[in-house]
Amino acid sequence: MGKLREVTVLLADLPVTLKTLHDCPSFPAPTEDADTFMGNATLKALHYAHLARCWALADDSGLTVDALSGAPGVHSARYAQDSVAPGDAANNAKLILNLSAVPVENRVARFHCAMVLAAPGRVLGSAIGAVEGIIVDDPRGDHGFGYDPHFFLPTYNKTMAQLPPDQKNLISHRGIALRAIRPIIEDLLQQPDEPKSP
Amino acid sequence: MGKLREVTVLLADLPVTLKTLHDCPSFPAPTEDADTFMGNATLKALHYAHLARCWALADDSGLTVDALSGAPGVHSARYAQDSVAPGDAANNAKLILNLSAVPVENRVARFHCAMVLAAPGRVLGSAIGAVEGIIVDDPRGDHGFGYDPHFFLPTYNKTMAQLPPDQKNLISHRGIALRAIRPIIEDLLQQPDEPKSP
Repeated sequence: MGKLREVTVLLADLPVTLKTLHDCPSFPAPTEDADTFMGNATLKALHYAHLARCWALADDSGLTVDALSGAPGVHSARYAQDSVAPGDAANNAKLILNLSAVPVENRVARFHCAMVLAAPGRVLGSAIGAVEGIIVDDPRGDHGFGYDPHFFLPTYNKTMAQLPPDQKNLISHRGIALRAIRPIIEDLLQQPDEPKSP
Repeated sequence: MGKLREVTVLLADLPVTLKTLHDCPSFPAPTEDADTFMGNATLKALHYAHLARCWALADDSGLTVDALSGAPGVHSARYAQDSVAPGDAANNAKLILNLSAVPVENRVARFHCAMVLAAPGRVLGSAIGAVEGIIVDDPRGDHGFGYDPHFFLPTYNKTMAQLPPDQKNLISHRGIALRAIRPIIEDLLQQPDEPKSP
């Protein structure tokens, strides 16, 4: 999975042990019902920090389109959940249908990633990364997932799905948020009164 | 000025020479009339790269409040421009007045910073950093500027204006965007076909 590899690479040399939900298969998932990406990332980080009794890093990501008043927003992953076959293809079809009357110059969109670090009962730090692009009708590229094939980056003359993983990690919303969290973790590790483990 | 010092610190060890608008007093300012922070940062970076005939790094920053449909947004610096004494105090007064009927739990706001690197005629890279907080009626803190005294960060139980500069740089929208741009610059400097200067 790309997300896990990206986190591991960017945090590898810190004096922390990284575990993932694959290491804790019995943990139930929380209900992600917040109004904002940061709200959902916060409730996930607090939920898992409580269960694991150690620091937890959680993210919440999604797409906002200005011409759609910010939709799909926090519902990005389940935008077309009422369709016959929910998933990336249905989400993208709904997005393009809803933008059919919007000219390309008004299709400004942003991918957002809220990243939250929590200890049991307490948020320790957070950051939001975002990248701006344009929604295009015709999908392009085989990398990535979700809305990536329709998210066009004028700077690179490519969609997000046409960027190789290393390039995507360099410029993506999640890469930005991760690079922002790292120095916050380093700062916390230098505070003598901050308990790192149970 | 805090912004210049922050850029200098974070980019200091790169093999580039940093100059600021203080070094180029004859450059006219562009009209910042884009609809988004990224749009304004892009037009500024392209404008100054064209004039200086070298790479230019520009940012555009501001506040959005969900309960105000994203206002003040790109008009953050001139939100109360029709007041008797435009400036930070008038902007903050207008913000608090417009939120007077909104309970504190619905006063979610974000500071955004769009950072763009351009060569003459061409955008080279960009990043958006953001931080989420809550707008409070009573100002607190002497650091920072603009809306900082009313932007409360629950994680730190402080407003942005109560954070010392180093702490603000660590967690702020501008700090996030700057930390995101640095590896993009490093990547560009390693590309043999990328002209660095005129």
